[in-house]
Amino acid sequence: MNQQYVLINGDLTLKEEAKILITDLSIQRGYGIFDFLKTIKGQPVFLDDHLDRFYFSAAELFLHVELSREALKRLIQQLMNKNNLPDSGIRITLTGGYSEDGFTPGKPNVLITQSAFTYNKENFEKGTRLVTYEYQRQLPQVKTIDYLQAIRLQTFIKENNADDVLYHGVSGISECPRSNFFIVTANDEIVTPAKNVLQGITRKNILSFSSLTTKEAVIDLDQLAKVKEAFITSTTKIILPVLKINGKPIGDGKPGTVTREIFKQLLRHQGIQ
Amino acid sequence: MNQQYVLINGDLTLKEEAKILITDLSIQRGYGIFDFLKTIKGQPVFLDDHLDRFYFSAAELFLHVELSREALKRLIQQLMNKNNLPDSGIRITLTGGYSEDGFTPGKPNVLITQSAFTYNKENFEKGTRLVTYEYQRQLPQVKTIDYLQAIRLQTFIKENNADDVLYHGVSGISECPRSNFFIVTANDEIVTPAKNVLQGITRKNILSFSSLTTKEAVIDLDQLAKVKEAFITSTTKIILPVLKINGKPIGDGKPGTVTREIFKQLLRHQGIQ
Repeated sequence: MNQQYVLINGDLTLKEEAKILITDLSIQRGYGIFDFLKTIKGQPVFLDDHLDRFYFSAAELFLHVELSREALKRLIQQLMNKNNLPDSGIRITLTGGYSEDGFTPGKPNVLITQSAFTYNKENFEKGTRLVTYEYQRQLPQVKTIDYLQAIRLQTFIKENNADDVLYHGVSGISECPRSNFFIVTANDEIVTPAKNVLQGITRKNILSFSSLTTKEAVIDLDQLAKVKEAFITSTTKIILPVLKINGKPIGDGKPGTVTREIFKQLLRHQGIQ
Repeated sequence: MNQQYVLINGDLTLKEEAKILITDLSIQRGYGIFDFLKTIKGQPVFLDDHLDRFYFSAAELFLHVELSREALKRLIQQLMNKNNLPDSGIRITLTGGYSEDGFTPGKPNVLITQSAFTYNKENFEKGTRLVTYEYQRQLPQVKTIDYLQAIRLQTFIKENNADDVLYHGVSGISECPRSNFFIVTANDEIVTPAKNVLQGITRKNILSFSSLTTKEAVIDLDQLAKVKEAFITSTTKIILPVLKINGKPIGDGKPGTVTREIFKQLLRHQGIQ
């Protein structure tokens, strides 16, 4: 395998030597945001959507991004050229920066990393199993680095023979830690929670498909027993049918026809054969 | 000023060169815990209480601390000897470690830092002003590195002519981001929120004073208008009278007699003249 590089504040650095000072506010106070996009055959997918959200997240935490959008794109291209990984995931992280007092933000550090990633269509058939958990992510629309609960709950997930956790709270079901959640109702309406969720890029794409009836609405926990199909979406997963929730099959426990149709449309939309 | 050292996994390193790899889960996912204690004239204050909480926090996040309590104490002593800062704050941070996939915890990194800190008794008279905000810290009893809201709310705090924020939620008032909250009722009872708060060491000391009537109970937001006195506690602040909440004076807007009495007892308890 070739040596991999990352960019720290625009400087190319070998991944295994890429370090920041421990006074950084991500280490001291978990303060930072990021975004994550994929590349297919050397082309970033939905790059502008991801950059829109990156700048939005930064602004929500009062972190100033010195780099213009064009400068950021150039850096991403530079890293892609250097690493020569046509199919990859690219993460852009913006931290709270080096803090004198361990609390006041400094000048943000910009970390851009890339890792090999090839989407595997066969995952679709395997689907996924969820277990519900009462929790509301803080600042849900902001892609912060806070995954405390998601990581802490890995043991709980395994104990419940599930692959991931589905959060719910006072306003019903929200999302999984790293993906959005959808149901297909008895009359083939595709519904996703309206509030308190991250505005996922794949979620946005599905909501914009004109050939399907989609809507954002409240989904109560007790609705799950009646849904025909359910699925989750993310940049890396694209779409995964939810086959079980809390051990109970969704529909007949196999990927449903509506989910399959959306999957097809998404693959076409992203240029995946 | 002398050069300052920190310990990274037991290795003495100059503070300005102290770095960790960006694959650490604190940077990637805000995953980590810490504790913070003070030293007075070269003596750590309530060291065992802080270490108790450090090991508790680590266990709650399923992070294994390889170092025994005695080994950790020896490291703290080694750092104190090297830095020669008799009056200081010492922070022990345990991160999620270097993660291959940016999500699964690795072997935790242990960071021990020290900075000059001398307690200033005169802060007591100045007191503090709070502004309330609806928010519940996640995993409140665990001293995680998550201070996203606390830092993000600095602008809100300034806009409201306050010094800090007081969180409240479904179970009433909880705490400030870095201190516990107490009220003194009309009949001189000292009350602090029972639930959903960090178990502060100073809070614990106050609750154990036998000469005063203290209790843990729910404090509703609308009770604040009627309280005689209010104060906050922490390792660095010890005790600060709350003179205003949301712009309204507490009592006569000056440090109260009960607060002053507790302050005296705490100073004596910590050997501060």
